[in-house]
Amino acid sequence: MGAPVVGIIGGGQLARMMHAAGIGLGIKVALLAEGPDVSAAQVVHDVTVGDYTDPATVIAFAERCDVVTFDHEHVPTDLLHALQERGVLVRPGPEALVHAQDKVVMRRRLASYGLPVPTFAVVASPEELVAFADGTGWPVIAKTSRGGYDGKGVWKVDDPTGAGEPFRNLAPGVEVLAEEYVPFVRELSALAVRSPSGQAVAYPVSESVQQDGICVETTTPAPGLTMEQATACQRLALEIAQDLDVVGVLAVELMQRADSSVVVNELAMRPHNTGHWSIDGALTSQFENHLRAVLDLPLGDPRARAPWTVMHNVLGGDRTDLVDGLRHVLARDPGLKVQLYGKGVVAGRKVGHVTAVGDDLDEVLRRARHGAAELRSGS
Amino acid sequence: MGAPVVGIIGGGQLARMMHAAGIGLGIKVALLAEGPDVSAAQVVHDVTVGDYTDPATVIAFAERCDVVTFDHEHVPTDLLHALQERGVLVRPGPEALVHAQDKVVMRRRLASYGLPVPTFAVVASPEELVAFADGTGWPVIAKTSRGGYDGKGVWKVDDPTGAGEPFRNLAPGVEVLAEEYVPFVRELSALAVRSPSGQAVAYPVSESVQQDGICVETTTPAPGLTMEQATACQRLALEIAQDLDVVGVLAVELMQRADSSVVVNELAMRPHNTGHWSIDGALTSQFENHLRAVLDLPLGDPRARAPWTVMHNVLGGDRTDLVDGLRHVLARDPGLKVQLYGKGVVAGRKVGHVTAVGDDLDEVLRRARHGAAELRSGS
Repeated sequence: MGAPVVGIIGGGQLARMMHAAGIGLGIKVALLAEGPDVSAAQVVHDVTVGDYTDPATVIAFAERCDVVTFDHEHVPTDLLHALQERGVLVRPGPEALVHAQDKVVMRRRLASYGLPVPTFAVVASPEELVAFADGTGWPVIAKTSRGGYDGKGVWKVDDPTGAGEPFRNLAPGVEVLAEEYVPFVRELSALAVRSPSGQAVAYPVSESVQQDGICVETTTPAPGLTMEQATACQRLALEIAQDLDVVGVLAVELMQRADSSVVVNELAMRPHNTGHWSIDGALTSQFENHLRAVLDLPLGDPRARAPWTVMHNVLGGDRTDLVDGLRHVLARDPGLKVQLYGKGVVAGRKVGHVTAVGDDLDEVLRRARHGAAELRSGS
Repeated sequence: MGAPVVGIIGGGQLARMMHAAGIGLGIKVALLAEGPDVSAAQVVHDVTVGDYTDPATVIAFAERCDVVTFDHEHVPTDLLHALQERGVLVRPGPEALVHAQDKVVMRRRLASYGLPVPTFAVVASPEELVAFADGTGWPVIAKTSRGGYDGKGVWKVDDPTGAGEPFRNLAPGVEVLAEEYVPFVRELSALAVRSPSGQAVAYPVSESVQQDGICVETTTPAPGLTMEQATACQRLALEIAQDLDVVGVLAVELMQRADSSVVVNELAMRPHNTGHWSIDGALTSQFENHLRAVLDLPLGDPRARAPWTVMHNVLGGDRTDLVDGLRHVLARDPGLKVQLYGKGVVAGRKVGHVTAVGDDLDEVLRRARHGAAELRSGS
């Protein structure tokens, strides 16, 4: 009869924003955090500090929650299976989540469905990588199967002299995936949310801009996408969500070629940076819909509230006191929305984001970029 | 250099919603709560359980906060002065807050500014109340000067036989205020937010519907109000905020007569039930703007995001499992926004609210009323 307890493993900004979204739904969040002061631990009431790779810690935490979900994809798959065997509701489940954890598993599965993916192969040595690239043509992309994020664990290999790099310091059990280089003109993101009961919604498709492998900006809807193209991207995300039995947010990162065709780049099964716009720009945010999904509550309307929404990440820069930065940013633009993550400022680290909404895309872009630049550097 | 700590005294739903709004601003909320399980204590990290009338408790709590603000108006004025004397930033300050705590002080002050208030007098006995009513005409309104809320501490006295009631069980130091009965056609609410630096914003004026002294519904903007009338109400709220040196939200509850003129009924100096619509209906919610104000950050845009926003309170009814109620409400209306307060269901108690936004007022009213009725009773 009491409020349901959603256990979130991982105390980063995604958990923080999930908690904020859950307050209105009457949800109690329990957090398994990496440390007492991490982003979400500052704002959640019920915090356990512990190691998410330690079975005893995770099991003790999970068994007092009604459902367990994630801030990140790094919990070992075996441990998630062990939780399920003990009757814990794990959402998304390990059978789905492995496709966001292991790029080789994901590529094989999507290819088996005939979905658009680059030509790929698992390569066991630099020589095999060179042989692969000689077949598809140089350059080639190499990725570790597990453990990469924000551009880490991904290499663009231009010629055979770089073929050794991806094999350096490989963790046990981690493979190297070789992929053809897709000459894309831009990146798109299609977000879907799916419930255990199979209900699913798709957000408007976003264009995302990455720098050094980190998402820095999204524009929603993606400019210039025809309704037909947008619908095809949404359908692709909904199809993958169903095929993989995803529960919660599925983010499908897409590369769009010059001929407008798209190829799947990465999958994420949690609220995603390319969906942060939805807090201020959609009728229901990705965070609220993720919580609704993991609790098997009906999903909320994902539609945009304004013609254009631009989200720009705040990466750590010269300014160390972000709240002081708010003074300047908010004074100049009373309609700008800011999310600060409560994280210490480190160069290049995601420490917040700003969102602008409006009718004129150029104006909205300008406002978001100005706000983020001001928070970053006070320039 | 760290995140500012806003201390909130009182752990009700207003503190809960303030915390939700502060997460994005990077604010840390510290809570002085009446009990470990009250509404806000469930969702705030830093909770102190203690008595807000006990000086030692309040002083120890306040001295570790950057600023102290309130979920309710019941902290003794003397104690707030004592905090100020110790260098604690109390916002709103006791000199302002006393006008929301003591109706006699408020009436005298507003009357001294020539602002529209009912004819009033402090009456020391039932006989003086009868004499007052014989002068203004019957019926007459009697109120306790302090301690009333949600219709408690207010009487409509129709004839001399009822004149004794307001004097029963009067707490020490509490007076009885007699007011002429204003034959109003509806109630309006004008919300302003003001910073210590004097910056102020006014929200669109709402019409509020009260039942048994409890706000049950607001419609924003108030239907049928001319721009001139709306501006006059906003100006009145901004003027009172400045005259009284309010910091944070000031809610001015107004009675509108048949000739459209308005009279001030009550003041509140904290986020107010008539401003709950702003979470989903305004560019910046009253909760975020209250926090910005008490931290002296620039205020956010108070304008509405849609032509109509209707907020309907969920009062405790037959349904005891509100999260289960969500299943039905959210399935029927994916665009409806719900706030549950995490409170046990007691008949007539405010346990949540729903908000609908849209272009068609009748439709928006119908959606909000349906959602609230379903959550209340499952009927």
